[in-house]
Amino acid sequence: MMNHQESLTQYIASFVSELVKNGVEDVVVSPGSRSTPMAMVMAEHPELRVHIHVDERSAAFFALGMAKATTNPVAILCTSGTAAANYYPAIVEAFYSRVPLIVLTADRPHELRDVGAPQAIDQIHLYGKNVKWFIEMAPPDHSDGVIRYVRSACTRAVSTAKKSPAGPVHLNFPFREPLIPQLDNPNIFALSNRKEAYMKIESGHMTLKAEEFNQMAHVLSSYEKGIIVCGPMEEEGFSKAVIGLAKKLNFPIIADPLSQLRSGYHSHSLIIDTYDSFLKNEDAKEQLKPEIIIRFGAMPVSKPLLQFLKLHQDVRQLVIDGGSGFRDPALLSTDMIYCQETLFCESLAAIVEEKEDSRFLKQWKDCNDLTKAKLKPIQHIEELSEGKIFAQLAELLPDGATVFVGNSMPIRDLDTFFHNNEKSIKVMANRGANGIDGVVSTALGAAMHSQPLYLIIGDLTFFHDLNGLIAAKLYHIPIHIIVINNNGGGIFSFLPQAEHPKNFEMLFGTPLDIDFSHSVKMFGGHYELITDWQHFSSALLSETDTFKVLEVTTNRDKNVKEHRDLWDSVSQEISRLLKG
Amino acid sequence: MMNHQESLTQYIASFVSELVKNGVEDVVVSPGSRSTPMAMVMAEHPELRVHIHVDERSAAFFALGMAKATTNPVAILCTSGTAAANYYPAIVEAFYSRVPLIVLTADRPHELRDVGAPQAIDQIHLYGKNVKWFIEMAPPDHSDGVIRYVRSACTRAVSTAKKSPAGPVHLNFPFREPLIPQLDNPNIFALSNRKEAYMKIESGHMTLKAEEFNQMAHVLSSYEKGIIVCGPMEEEGFSKAVIGLAKKLNFPIIADPLSQLRSGYHSHSLIIDTYDSFLKNEDAKEQLKPEIIIRFGAMPVSKPLLQFLKLHQDVRQLVIDGGSGFRDPALLSTDMIYCQETLFCESLAAIVEEKEDSRFLKQWKDCNDLTKAKLKPIQHIEELSEGKIFAQLAELLPDGATVFVGNSMPIRDLDTFFHNNEKSIKVMANRGANGIDGVVSTALGAAMHSQPLYLIIGDLTFFHDLNGLIAAKLYHIPIHIIVINNNGGGIFSFLPQAEHPKNFEMLFGTPLDIDFSHSVKMFGGHYELITDWQHFSSALLSETDTFKVLEVTTNRDKNVKEHRDLWDSVSQEISRLLKG
Repeated sequence: MMNHQESLTQYIASFVSELVKNGVEDVVVSPGSRSTPMAMVMAEHPELRVHIHVDERSAAFFALGMAKATTNPVAILCTSGTAAANYYPAIVEAFYSRVPLIVLTADRPHELRDVGAPQAIDQIHLYGKNVKWFIEMAPPDHSDGVIRYVRSACTRAVSTAKKSPAGPVHLNFPFREPLIPQLDNPNIFALSNRKEAYMKIESGHMTLKAEEFNQMAHVLSSYEKGIIVCGPMEEEGFSKAVIGLAKKLNFPIIADPLSQLRSGYHSHSLIIDTYDSFLKNEDAKEQLKPEIIIRFGAMPVSKPLLQFLKLHQDVRQLVIDGGSGFRDPALLSTDMIYCQETLFCESLAAIVEEKEDSRFLKQWKDCNDLTKAKLKPIQHIEELSEGKIFAQLAELLPDGATVFVGNSMPIRDLDTFFHNNEKSIKVMANRGANGIDGVVSTALGAAMHSQPLYLIIGDLTFFHDLNGLIAAKLYHIPIHIIVINNNGGGIFSFLPQAEHPKNFEMLFGTPLDIDFSHSVKMFGGHYELITDWQHFSSALLSETDTFKVLEVTTNRDKNVKEHRDLWDSVSQEISRLLKG
Repeated sequence: MMNHQESLTQYIASFVSELVKNGVEDVVVSPGSRSTPMAMVMAEHPELRVHIHVDERSAAFFALGMAKATTNPVAILCTSGTAAANYYPAIVEAFYSRVPLIVLTADRPHELRDVGAPQAIDQIHLYGKNVKWFIEMAPPDHSDGVIRYVRSACTRAVSTAKKSPAGPVHLNFPFREPLIPQLDNPNIFALSNRKEAYMKIESGHMTLKAEEFNQMAHVLSSYEKGIIVCGPMEEEGFSKAVIGLAKKLNFPIIADPLSQLRSGYHSHSLIIDTYDSFLKNEDAKEQLKPEIIIRFGAMPVSKPLLQFLKLHQDVRQLVIDGGSGFRDPALLSTDMIYCQETLFCESLAAIVEEKEDSRFLKQWKDCNDLTKAKLKPIQHIEELSEGKIFAQLAELLPDGATVFVGNSMPIRDLDTFFHNNEKSIKVMANRGANGIDGVVSTALGAAMHSQPLYLIIGDLTFFHDLNGLIAAKLYHIPIHIIVINNNGGGIFSFLPQAEHPKNFEMLFGTPLDIDFSHSVKMFGGHYELITDWQHFSSALLSETDTFKVLEVTTNRDKNVKEHRDLWDSVSQEISRLLKG
């Protein structure tokens, strides 16, 4: 007859063993009492990397970053109570950005719930609709039936998290005292009667039937003026596939910075990457009107692009989504097609008729080339400037680098100034819910698996997750963090409230007036206040074995003017081109 | 015909005006775009204090602190997306600690929901069961019906938040662009046809009928050996009332540090405040067995007390709760009585027969006095010691001070070493869910209304909410923060895992090795590393016009030994007393 502790140990070891067999390699643990047995067993598993993070909010974003960089599920573990509530922002982000997370929360056993016990809150469906699957686990037991259940629940959890659309799953574990597992048996992870894993789940992909593809190919061949719009996309092999399709159709590809199409070794001849600037021009908006639009991924960040699409709401628009979502904020799609994106492109490219060069394609490329030329002057600005940072990054970053950008201004400036190049540079951001929270931690998590990594964020975003830097300290994560410090919320200066000066600084400008060098020092990082562009490039390129913060101070008002002047000059030239 | 902006303005101004009429005086706003109209209108109201806090997690705890200190509802406002998810920990704490919060989240309008729009997440019932009331507000409109609805929804929200058990309510506002309100009309807050407020809600209190009180008085008179247990309690007038009842019954009052009974101008003759130490003794546990227990408030923090109550599960136990909850984690109550606590005490004290001094009461008081004497040596420890900090605080703090303690060790050390005194010192902590999150912000919020305030927390708790210090900087909040830095999770050294050294430091000790002075400097505070007790008392007593961090470094292992030695010496003496 097994005692409580043996039973607890066998139950948890079965779970942890199955987690690893299902491919989970990283777990981020936040210290706590109720989660003791799971944490102690996890630390025993030779193939599981256990990362410790005291602040659960940062911990979950750190895990999110690892999962984003690897597209492999990462587990997080915390104790009961508000600890679990701190996971919420990262879980919401994971849900909307389709990142697989395995959320494990320890809970009080049933008899200690809703009776005023300490650190006991209602954890059933704690994250509401923001997880793909929730399961309240059975109390630990060693019976055959329960062990089979634990192993199969684990497999289901990992499989559900990975299945398209990927996302977070939540398992809540009721643990009764005593909480110390029995770790003297070296074989706790052994699987008695099956080899690889208890079971596995194979999940197919959404695709169309051959005759549906044939019909689609026929439709696409009938249009001369078409564009392909690619939003954020992580799918391996997609870049090659969509370029293959675009070449057959002779359609330009409007490539969002997160589409992974702007950089890379693939052909760049069809990639349009300055539309955010030239689609502000009314002539371009009119004259570049397509007859058909094929859209992949989430909606791109560019507002002018969205307005362009809205203007042409009469145009047939195919939205392809292998995750069966409804990512169409302006409700413009005419055909919503649930089909795995790479399969869609490859299947069509194989059967569609090759088209000849078109005037329409040339127009798009001309606008793109002209815009690029007109944005060049940013490179000659001598003063420190927000826009130029991104032009510099495109030029300076080494092949193989990863760029992580904050929401608000950095992702937009990257969109405008980080152009098409033939290095392989991966671009990442938290674009599920576009929050300014958790960005430091997400980038640090990503940097655990993607090196070298460069994070570019504003001062408010940096401040929001300053605690996240503890991971850089504890795990010696080399990362360059470029903090664009305009002392407040720079994006609001571009919004209508900027015209209402009363209370503007209090409600939107929100200057913090803090010197981040202190915090960097506290976390053991290296800090440099950038003085000029030469300093910027040398600081950017020097290697680092710790985290390094390069602070670039700018001015919000001047920044708005600089952007508007550049856009105006682009717009004038575009009008001249299109009218000429 | 009103345009969109006039209509939006009238709708929001009606809401804000009603909020103020219902007694809300403080709102904490986190900057964002979607919340623009509400933020701008709030900033116009002359009677509403608008506090800005960039980090929504800290913002919500800051509001919680203000609401705790004043027992008046405080509103919080943020934009859509993960911003709102960051409120979750403080909302959960408010729910379990019965603190009124009005949570206002801006949301995308219906047509931008679940279609992949940026910063759009499902905010309907975002906080699940952790709010008392959720309402998805109607889209802004100026029709009479909608304006009446907005005003009455606001009144219902505030009233629901305040009604016992107090707690958070959540209102979600769908705002369509353009988001700028029209603020040129000086009379936007005017109420057209009613004077004070659109309507008000009067809520009665739970009480028993006269014959039920008579019966209760009869029951109570029949027991000689009774104790009154008082847990955390904020109820004004309760201290006086419960002491009045205890005097009539001649029952000792076991007073939790958060009962507000240990300090104050009331009579202290019946207050037992060292039970956490002497109830560790087996003889005391046996011999102090009561025949009846009357319990008020949430369960006290003391584990020995809980074990004492569990040991005597055959004893009749009345649990009185004006909030109609079920705060009885060990399931020991025989009578759960839903009656407002002060009314209960006053009504019974008026009719119960006065009893004579009892040997039982004397035993409790003797144990208490002896324990106090045996704990005195802590005052003579020359080295810096965690326990002595609390003994020092009891001695040194000025009359009228507020003490805010972190969970884990500080609340427990306060329980052991902060004794009964006749100054009026209020003790506060986040004991709803007992998290280590948000403590800095909650204390700073409380310090906005309770001065002087002394926060005592461990290094991990301080770290968890370091960002919260921004409020101290921006609002020049004078506060003394005593950081007990034992470089990690001190409480785990008292738990069973401390006997399993493998992985202990990694999973539970979790040393951060950071020098907080940098962070204090960054936020413009004053920092002192305490060198000895004289330094401690002078630093504690010197006034400050900013926040001030006094860091006391201690050693986790030595701390455990010091506690155990003291408890052993208490226990030996208690056995001698009770056997003698």
